[in-house]
Amino acid sequence: MKKADLLMIPGPTPLPEAVREVLSRPAIGHRSAEFKEVLKRVFPNLRWIFQCKNQVFLYTASGTGAMEAALSNTHNAEDRILVLVNGVFSQRWVEIAKTLGITVESLDVPPGEAHTPGMLREYLQANVGTRYKSVMMTHSETSTGVLSPIHELTAVCRETHPETLVIADTITSLGAAHFDLESWDVDIAVSGSQKGFMLPPGLSFLALSDRAWQAHQQCQNPGYYFNFTRYQKAQADNTTPYTPATPQILGLDVALQLMMDEGLEGIVKRHTQLRDMTRAGLKAMGLELFVPQDQYASPSVTSFMPPEGVSVDAVRAALKKRFGIVIADGQKELKGKIMRIGHLGNVSAREVLTTLSALEAVLVDLHVNVPAGAGVAAAIQVQQEALAAHA
Amino acid sequence: MKKADLLMIPGPTPLPEAVREVLSRPAIGHRSAEFKEVLKRVFPNLRWIFQCKNQVFLYTASGTGAMEAALSNTHNAEDRILVLVNGVFSQRWVEIAKTLGITVESLDVPPGEAHTPGMLREYLQANVGTRYKSVMMTHSETSTGVLSPIHELTAVCRETHPETLVIADTITSLGAAHFDLESWDVDIAVSGSQKGFMLPPGLSFLALSDRAWQAHQQCQNPGYYFNFTRYQKAQADNTTPYTPATPQILGLDVALQLMMDEGLEGIVKRHTQLRDMTRAGLKAMGLELFVPQDQYASPSVTSFMPPEGVSVDAVRAALKKRFGIVIADGQKELKGKIMRIGHLGNVSAREVLTTLSALEAVLVDLHVNVPAGAGVAAAIQVQQEALAAHA
Repeated sequence: MKKADLLMIPGPTPLPEAVREVLSRPAIGHRSAEFKEVLKRVFPNLRWIFQCKNQVFLYTASGTGAMEAALSNTHNAEDRILVLVNGVFSQRWVEIAKTLGITVESLDVPPGEAHTPGMLREYLQANVGTRYKSVMMTHSETSTGVLSPIHELTAVCRETHPETLVIADTITSLGAAHFDLESWDVDIAVSGSQKGFMLPPGLSFLALSDRAWQAHQQCQNPGYYFNFTRYQKAQADNTTPYTPATPQILGLDVALQLMMDEGLEGIVKRHTQLRDMTRAGLKAMGLELFVPQDQYASPSVTSFMPPEGVSVDAVRAALKKRFGIVIADGQKELKGKIMRIGHLGNVSAREVLTTLSALEAVLVDLHVNVPAGAGVAAAIQVQQEALAAHA
Repeated sequence: MKKADLLMIPGPTPLPEAVREVLSRPAIGHRSAEFKEVLKRVFPNLRWIFQCKNQVFLYTASGTGAMEAALSNTHNAEDRILVLVNGVFSQRWVEIAKTLGITVESLDVPPGEAHTPGMLREYLQANVGTRYKSVMMTHSETSTGVLSPIHELTAVCRETHPETLVIADTITSLGAAHFDLESWDVDIAVSGSQKGFMLPPGLSFLALSDRAWQAHQQCQNPGYYFNFTRYQKAQADNTTPYTPATPQILGLDVALQLMMDEGLEGIVKRHTQLRDMTRAGLKAMGLELFVPQDQYASPSVTSFMPPEGVSVDAVRAALKKRFGIVIADGQKELKGKIMRIGHLGNVSAREVLTTLSALEAVLVDLHVNVPAGAGVAAAIQVQQEALAAHA
């Protein structure tokens, strides 16, 4: 029998049954009254998940499309920006900006590390006379599993550069980590459907502040397909400017309801616990975590190094073949150096225990000396303590 | 009992059962070996439907995204183009081009009419010294139901402006009307998933000639998300540069197989027959066709005027309420002036007869004098003659 694989990767994430059901519904007209009713629920609920008072734009495109939209709608070719780079996805901000003719400075820390408020303060104070149109950040760097303290980093930007836009990639953090666009004073946040939203890929989201909207008013070449103005105008009429990916939007309606039922606090608590269980389990199995500091560990993805003499390929292939469990390789220069376990979206403690058990079996088979049952025991202990704390 | 509506609109079109089944499959990793196998089938099959020797790019975006991609990847801001305008979607070429800073000339004919080769020849000969980077055409103008003779129009462009790119919107023509990018010497054609491809919206396609690829090499600001170069590079490795809408791609794999089983000739023959049945039926019911000339009638959508004293809203509302059949209103200045019946994609003679019968019932109820059964009889007659001709 061939069971569907269990995806323990940082997107796409497993789909809830209630989402899968609506994906295969008969075609629905995207200008119909029924579909407008769906959008009428979806638009305010999107504001809730971003904690954003303004409209959140819904793009039929991957998260990269929304990243380009964030820049192309608010920047002009002569602008200068600062990008905080600590991995593949933060580096993507650099690539997109350069393609758009924007001048880019980057403040780099090694993959697996986070930018600290002190480090950013020092850099900005040394460049206090430089007019940065924006500072680009990555909340959860999917390629390494680092969660950056973007609340504090934003506050640091405001000290010396109050007019500078703060733009955040919240693609694997939204619906997993605490995020609050309004209170944190972030200007633009982008996310994608196949992550905390528990949907297939196809949609991306962009939340923005008044400051970002004003920057859009001064943008000379905002483009057509991703143009904020067109989305704002359409949304006021509960529709989209162009034909949207209707199955994913029907799914979004269901998923947002599931998320609201769990509540923001519940969502963050669950993902934090899954992260803590995963990290404790891997450590107990003698594996080295790629992000050593707990405070910078992403609640959506955990990276670790293979044991001495064992290849990433061998571990991943065995997990897939023997158990139908998929975990991710490293990306770019980290390919073959780290493995990444996603614990994001429609994932519970059950899948974490499953993955740790299967990993133990695979490592033993690869002649790694793993203390029997230690990974699962450590993970259970984490959950036990959390349950006791809430009792 | 609430049955699903029968969508007789020019997109989205009804979905085949085999497509619906794969849409709700459990999540699949877009970088997995299994998904690469899907793309390995899909990419060459897309070349087949466009009759294109080069790679066809697959965007997670609506058709409008692919339209912008066609311009933004091959044009520079100082370029001048000519747009053949005869409706809402051909006008969209004008809007996109202006947004990108391109200088636009438009050659307009009234909605419901097509540009003739003679008319275009006259215009181009009068502007023989003008360097047009491209001439933009719309194969099937969805807002009116006009099929333009873009094969002949392209040949006319080559007479005086051989270096000019010919760019065609084939969004509602592909998989319905005869189209051949290579033989017709068209440079770029764009289409969308929710039309002849019988899929939900979410994907768009862009086929291109060597001439268009060369223009891309000289493009200064091709952007990031829609950048040809990134799609070409990824496709060589059977993947996509950014996370794609996986459900729609699984559906595309199924739909392209259905289309190949029917064959290009079969697809065109079926749609032509559905058009002829619809037109004959509407005429026999005493209704006036918006596109009077058969040779310019689109095989995917048929527009007609409401009878004297009857509103478009009343007809559409009654069809939907009494029979669960959805037909389209006119758009923009044609809103409330015409109705549009889509007969595109997963549609057969059965749905055309159903729609004509229901329309008769609704018109009678609205006190219109319709000869009983005349519409259906005329449509059956068309099919009968076609069957006899092939016997």
